[in-house]
Amino acid sequence: MNEAKMKPVGEMPDPGRRKFLNTAAFAGLAGAGLSVGLSACNKETAPAPAASTAPMAAAEHLEVGKYEVAPGQLDEYYSFSSGGHSGECRIYGLPSGRELKRIPVFNMDCLVGWGTTNESKAILGTKPNGTPKYTTGDTHHVHPSYTDGTYDGKYMFVNDKIHGRLARIRMDTMETDKITEIPNIQGFHGTFPDKRDPVDAAINHTTRVFCGAEFSIPLPNDGRDMEDGSKYKSLFTCVDAETMEVRWQALIDGNCDLVASSYDGKLAATNQYNTEMGIHYEGMMGAEMDACLFFNVARIEEAVKAGKFTTIGSSKVPVVDGTRASNADPKTALTCYVPIPKNPHGVNISPDGKYYACSGKLSPTASVIEHALVLKWFDGELPEAREAVVAEPEIGLGPLHTGFDNKGNAYTTLFLDSQIVKWNVEAAIKSFKGDTAAKVVLDRIDVHYQPGHGFTSMGETKESDGRYFVSDNKFSKDRFLPVGPLHAETAQLIDISGDKMKLVADHSVYSEPHDSIIIRRDIIKTRQIYNLDDFPHAVKDPKESGVFRDGKKVTVKLTSQAPAFSLREFKVKKGDEVTIILTNLDKVEDLTHAMAIPKYDINFIVNPQQTQSVTFVADQPGVYWCYCTNFCHALHLEMRSRMIVEA
Amino acid sequence: MNEAKMKPVGEMPDPGRRKFLNTAAFAGLAGAGLSVGLSACNKETAPAPAASTAPMAAAEHLEVGKYEVAPGQLDEYYSFSSGGHSGECRIYGLPSGRELKRIPVFNMDCLVGWGTTNESKAILGTKPNGTPKYTTGDTHHVHPSYTDGTYDGKYMFVNDKIHGRLARIRMDTMETDKITEIPNIQGFHGTFPDKRDPVDAAINHTTRVFCGAEFSIPLPNDGRDMEDGSKYKSLFTCVDAETMEVRWQALIDGNCDLVASSYDGKLAATNQYNTEMGIHYEGMMGAEMDACLFFNVARIEEAVKAGKFTTIGSSKVPVVDGTRASNADPKTALTCYVPIPKNPHGVNISPDGKYYACSGKLSPTASVIEHALVLKWFDGELPEAREAVVAEPEIGLGPLHTGFDNKGNAYTTLFLDSQIVKWNVEAAIKSFKGDTAAKVVLDRIDVHYQPGHGFTSMGETKESDGRYFVSDNKFSKDRFLPVGPLHAETAQLIDISGDKMKLVADHSVYSEPHDSIIIRRDIIKTRQIYNLDDFPHAVKDPKESGVFRDGKKVTVKLTSQAPAFSLREFKVKKGDEVTIILTNLDKVEDLTHAMAIPKYDINFIVNPQQTQSVTFVADQPGVYWCYCTNFCHALHLEMRSRMIVEA
Repeated sequence: MNEAKMKPVGEMPDPGRRKFLNTAAFAGLAGAGLSVGLSACNKETAPAPAASTAPMAAAEHLEVGKYEVAPGQLDEYYSFSSGGHSGECRIYGLPSGRELKRIPVFNMDCLVGWGTTNESKAILGTKPNGTPKYTTGDTHHVHPSYTDGTYDGKYMFVNDKIHGRLARIRMDTMETDKITEIPNIQGFHGTFPDKRDPVDAAINHTTRVFCGAEFSIPLPNDGRDMEDGSKYKSLFTCVDAETMEVRWQALIDGNCDLVASSYDGKLAATNQYNTEMGIHYEGMMGAEMDACLFFNVARIEEAVKAGKFTTIGSSKVPVVDGTRASNADPKTALTCYVPIPKNPHGVNISPDGKYYACSGKLSPTASVIEHALVLKWFDGELPEAREAVVAEPEIGLGPLHTGFDNKGNAYTTLFLDSQIVKWNVEAAIKSFKGDTAAKVVLDRIDVHYQPGHGFTSMGETKESDGRYFVSDNKFSKDRFLPVGPLHAETAQLIDISGDKMKLVADHSVYSEPHDSIIIRRDIIKTRQIYNLDDFPHAVKDPKESGVFRDGKKVTVKLTSQAPAFSLREFKVKKGDEVTIILTNLDKVEDLTHAMAIPKYDINFIVNPQQTQSVTFVADQPGVYWCYCTNFCHALHLEMRSRMIVEA
Repeated sequence: MNEAKMKPVGEMPDPGRRKFLNTAAFAGLAGAGLSVGLSACNKETAPAPAASTAPMAAAEHLEVGKYEVAPGQLDEYYSFSSGGHSGECRIYGLPSGRELKRIPVFNMDCLVGWGTTNESKAILGTKPNGTPKYTTGDTHHVHPSYTDGTYDGKYMFVNDKIHGRLARIRMDTMETDKITEIPNIQGFHGTFPDKRDPVDAAINHTTRVFCGAEFSIPLPNDGRDMEDGSKYKSLFTCVDAETMEVRWQALIDGNCDLVASSYDGKLAATNQYNTEMGIHYEGMMGAEMDACLFFNVARIEEAVKAGKFTTIGSSKVPVVDGTRASNADPKTALTCYVPIPKNPHGVNISPDGKYYACSGKLSPTASVIEHALVLKWFDGELPEAREAVVAEPEIGLGPLHTGFDNKGNAYTTLFLDSQIVKWNVEAAIKSFKGDTAAKVVLDRIDVHYQPGHGFTSMGETKESDGRYFVSDNKFSKDRFLPVGPLHAETAQLIDISGDKMKLVADHSVYSEPHDSIIIRRDIIKTRQIYNLDDFPHAVKDPKESGVFRDGKKVTVKLTSQAPAFSLREFKVKKGDEVTIILTNLDKVEDLTHAMAIPKYDINFIVNPQQTQSVTFVADQPGVYWCYCTNFCHALHLEMRSRMIVEA
């Protein structure tokens, strides 16, 4: 391809797109998805809402106050949310919707010093010049570790779609503690931890994390095979939950989108669009059937043990062959491709472990796949993988993600219909078998405006409790006061405890609440202060403070105790490589200190009993007032130390 | 000073601190401020709240639902908040407390691409290697521009304490458009725009922004005079609100803390602690009286016009002499130092323009300074500056900041008492004159736990409306579900419309809500889409898309229209310096696109009709899927372009 050949869209012959224009799904797009946007076309300035000093009327809100969390009261649930292209994670309280914490993961956070401190850079990884290797990220899915089919409050895992990384967050401190860059993938879309070991019944907790890569690329991606899309492949990856090292990868046809894991530990699943392997937009939606792809974890790990793997490029990770052609015999197959209509998006397992719901996106259906039947296929006892589909109800336009309650009902987001649809799984199965009396769809509720992920309280555990559903929506448009071109997104809270769903709150969220989970508050046990001994370089006593020189390398050790640093001043020389080690000796909950150094671009916090450090070259002579940026005391303003850089 | 002399605090003879220990204020600290913290000492793990599935009881909440904003309803007020050491600003809706937008200012924001795009780097300033000069910041105060004594919705100004910068935010797009680094200062604490011109009555809007530097330093700070604290000085700076260039600076004694401006345009004010000019913590609280310092703007500008100024170091900015010694004669003085008790913190002007409230911090008093009397001093008609103080009520321990309603009442945050105190200004003046019947303090309410800034709805304008007070607090401790060592802060909403203050909501905020303002919603007029012509490099038609080579410099022009980029693929060569220019041709409100490039650390959004660009060296061969990270359409996942980097 040369430059002259790269024509813009308007001039390109476009059979793929024309074909798509003829589908019912696109009619749906034009009718629902686009018109919502177009209705505001050319409106450059938002109308100012009328001024009002009257108290808010709450006419549409049927049970006023029921979902309010009064001052001093605590929320009932935590919501942990991936922050999308903000690169972070967030913790909210529900039902209030209050943001309780931002957890820096792949982003820089100048408050925490994430990307600035030596400790955070060691986790993020650095370039040869010592700056973070990446400063962007696109967090997609956040899922905690399991024990006995429910959350154990130990770890959360979250992925970065841009650079193909998996991060782990310790749930005692709610801080990122490990990041692993997965080799030979692009577009790391979905991730899910396993729930128990497929073989060893004693291991009834998470030990693996499954990772699905969406974009196919030449393997290795070093400049070879760039023109031939048929040579592009994708990998499904298994990471060890403790060491965070990559255990194995599986070469597959098609891409990976969302990921799910079975309650018995035997299967991991990923839905697939673009099984046609298009490398242009137009080529990605031709096939009437894509797939939900299942991985037989035990067989894959046996194959690895038996040496039946290859490696790719400089990576040492064993790669097994999970392609269709190599897995035609169910009895030895590592993978099972279950055909699902048109570009499905989302795969979620029911709390009883029996069914996977995989929605069509461009098909108005949700496919129900029975777990036992997929296992039967792997045993060679089911002639066709498609026979594992036991229901395929038409539920609405643009179905994406499904949450479950504790009564056998499923709640699916409908992107194009801008609705949540409640449907009954067993009724759908009966209907699929021909029972015309089965009432599948039980309720629908409008959301505002385009729902992406949706999820129920405890819904991804066996303790699903049927209290709340949250719809994380795109295009908030007129739901909040106008704030310029970049709008907030909405997380809408829906009470699902009754027969009818009830919209109870519009929570605003900074883009993008890509996916979230709702956890009962009793499950979360956090630390409020650190253990000094967790930090090898801790300055454990103010008497250890001082300036320690080793040639041009200078280490400045100091402590903080409200409202003062242990050193009132310290002196270095121009050109020194200075490492500041700061231990916060305060033991009081919530008594965080910080240190900022003007002109040296340094700012970071130290929580109670924590130690943090920064390293920089003192290249500018003069006096620099290092001050505490985290309010700590009535004399916080006076909490300063003087760095004197001698010329 | 050599290293051996730098002893840690525990070993230092410490007369300053002992002196302080004997003051009543410290008794207050020990009794209130510290004990709040110490009560939780050694509690390493927070108790898990009891599990509950019952709806929240709202026992303490007297008027349930009155302050709730039901789904689909809009808030009545905007709150604009500086984000402290997060380096950003935020927009909240009130009374809901919903965060409607984060505005990146001094921080990096990988969602927006702030710090990544060429356009944002031009505003932030860069190092020789093209990366942002600073990636940290500590936003302190956010104040919008005025016309006729109230907000005109044009600009907001916000300062960075760490690196001494003033940023301007356009309020139509709510985006930072200019950043100015102020020369020869450190610790830029307070800022406030003027409200009209001191001389030209026709200029009845903001044209200047006043900036107070807190830390005194050698001038210039190039390694000279580092040992002699008496040579350290501070500067008060005036920046042009339109050009954002520095107009002038005033050399002063003592530091600058908060800043206020008068309604008639004649005076700027700053409160001062550490007038004793201590360079160690212990030396900063010896004086019984510090000051509130007033600047006579017209006289300073006359002096500059008359050439009565110096310059400092390489800076060309005219610096006038505002020190005490040079301004002893009121009739020619540029500055007036009004004595105020012990380390005051905060200076706020009443909506009628008559009084400044300046609180004592280490004195339990608020000093009321009459504007007309300060002018009288400058006219030589008031013998002592201290006579401008017309009231000094004892209002409680640790008084910091004051908001005003429309009925002559003031609301002051009491850091040590953990309260807001409501007091009447005229009653305080009567009491000061000896009227023992005057009832000064009208009400007190507990807040949780340590209030910093507090402010009333429209309270910093002549349209103060007496509806709400917000207390931005530190140490939320047990007010929210535990989330580990780093807690949320609280912004507590208080209804002040009745005789008694009423706490109506605990809003959680990411550290640190340093200061905020509350604005009626009808004042804010935002744009929802950009004007294509605002961007000189806009790609106005998909047909202009393509790859344009000039030696090793390659420009890739493309457009976005949901759900596709105009180029399905583009090709560059290893080693090329690539500039991608992306124009979002969608005209639909809220239809933002984005582009991420794996392994190249690029991610940024483009709002409707906006153009953004990035420049990088294509140093890795291979295929890189550039994808849209901002959900835009049902086929958002398919919205990709392929960057092919030839080896």
